[in-house]
Amino acid sequence: MAATQARTEAALAHHLPGSDCIPHRLHDAMRYATLGGGKRVRPLLAFAAGELTGATPEKLDIVACAVELIHAYSLVHDDLPCMDDDVLRRGRPTCHVEYDEPTALLVGDSLQTLAFELLASHPLGDRQLEMIALLAHASGSRGMAGGQAIDLASVGTPLEQPQLELMHALKTGALIRAAVLLGALAGQPLSADERSHLDRFAKRAGLLFQVVDDILDCTASTATLGKTAGKDEAADKPTYVALLGLEGARSYAEELRTEALAALSLFGERADRLTRLADFICHRQF
Amino acid sequence: MAATQARTEAALAHHLPGSDCIPHRLHDAMRYATLGGGKRVRPLLAFAAGELTGATPEKLDIVACAVELIHAYSLVHDDLPCMDDDVLRRGRPTCHVEYDEPTALLVGDSLQTLAFELLASHPLGDRQLEMIALLAHASGSRGMAGGQAIDLASVGTPLEQPQLELMHALKTGALIRAAVLLGALAGQPLSADERSHLDRFAKRAGLLFQVVDDILDCTASTATLGKTAGKDEAADKPTYVALLGLEGARSYAEELRTEALAALSLFGERADRLTRLADFICHRQF
Repeated sequence: MAATQARTEAALAHHLPGSDCIPHRLHDAMRYATLGGGKRVRPLLAFAAGELTGATPEKLDIVACAVELIHAYSLVHDDLPCMDDDVLRRGRPTCHVEYDEPTALLVGDSLQTLAFELLASHPLGDRQLEMIALLAHASGSRGMAGGQAIDLASVGTPLEQPQLELMHALKTGALIRAAVLLGALAGQPLSADERSHLDRFAKRAGLLFQVVDDILDCTASTATLGKTAGKDEAADKPTYVALLGLEGARSYAEELRTEALAALSLFGERADRLTRLADFICHRQF
Repeated sequence: MAATQARTEAALAHHLPGSDCIPHRLHDAMRYATLGGGKRVRPLLAFAAGELTGATPEKLDIVACAVELIHAYSLVHDDLPCMDDDVLRRGRPTCHVEYDEPTALLVGDSLQTLAFELLASHPLGDRQLEMIALLAHASGSRGMAGGQAIDLASVGTPLEQPQLELMHALKTGALIRAAVLLGALAGQPLSADERSHLDRFAKRAGLLFQVVDDILDCTASTATLGKTAGKDEAADKPTYVALLGLEGARSYAEELRTEALAALSLFGERADRLTRLADFICHRQF
């Protein structure tokens, strides 16, 4: 895991325009917002899924960068004053605090664009257009950005579990699923049955990630998380902990982990890295 | 021109998610920000360049939508309070005024994503990946968004003409150039010489568009423009009028139009629509 994280960091550093490239300040801020932090869960999932289909590390570098750039853009925009208005991210001042608000807006915009530029300008095999379309669908208004819109609209409104799951399936789940599917698409084709199992794993892993995120928001400290803890409750946001209680959320996380692993059984040892990642997502402390 | 504008409007209405699609408010706002207004200069250029290479109207619909969605996203984000803080666009309240600021942020984000989703999910011929990479490069930090960053940094700073041209080549020119090149790429291949002439046309047309924009900002009324007139001077922004004076800017526009048309002479009658568009861009009143 540490090797893949370091590899992703190096690939991101390579593909982000240098701070010496005009406009300097914008590129500096893009690097600030992307490099030097983060668990890189989506790149780890892309590499693990790519191992399943024999994708080359060079192709997976591009996939990993693209999904992480989309994730980084969403964090920069989510932290803006008109959204979550947060000042701390990955243990450092958020982008608009360190630079300024217009710069942070352009940073998010440009990180998104760069994700698609990378996916389109490096050879990724026969299903490259499908990969681009899949990432776009997963991050747009019927995916991540749509989930964010539902989240904003639901502050102060008690959501039932099906609505909460729809919101998270979009807001967090869609991009995590895309990371898994894009990693797999960079390698040899899967059978329809294999693809459906991998998709089931990806959806469960995405939901698991969010349930654990909700648990950590109310059990971990700001220092451990590197972002402001307790924000969800303070903002009266609908969370799994609010819905199920802390113990209920923990049982649900275990249940999702079990289902995720069951979906992988078809693949045998080829899915070892994905199995370990599901455990990591479930038991992480930050 | 009116037929192409209507065709583009219909294609955008078709490809934007419906207001009945969840999340309703976000999709409603995306449609509000994109439909029912605008000169559609970039789609017109894409169709005219596609005529040059025999591209099918079905492919050009997708190209036209993609470039216009990128343009629409940039307007929504540029109008936000932290950027130009504008309340009027295409004769109507701007997106964040009509909806709210977080929604406008997500609208811009999602319109950008949709542009790439469309380009990747419809068959556009052999050079589809090149088209996606070109649009991404033109709109990102080394293109449109980069130009916007330079513009923000240069308020109150007198720019020399070369710096002003760099800023505009990125901020407005890059996307106009992309509209021309993508339209052409959707058809039969051009020779290297033809492509270089078309590119020269595209660059001149982009610069011409901006020079005329600067002239109109200080000569036309808010009612005619459908956006707040006189903003550049009020904001002490560097413009061609500030640099060259009104008459100087008008002569420069004529010079650019002449150069643009000269670049088209190679193509003969096949470039009739591009020729008429250069005249339109030069002599438009809004």
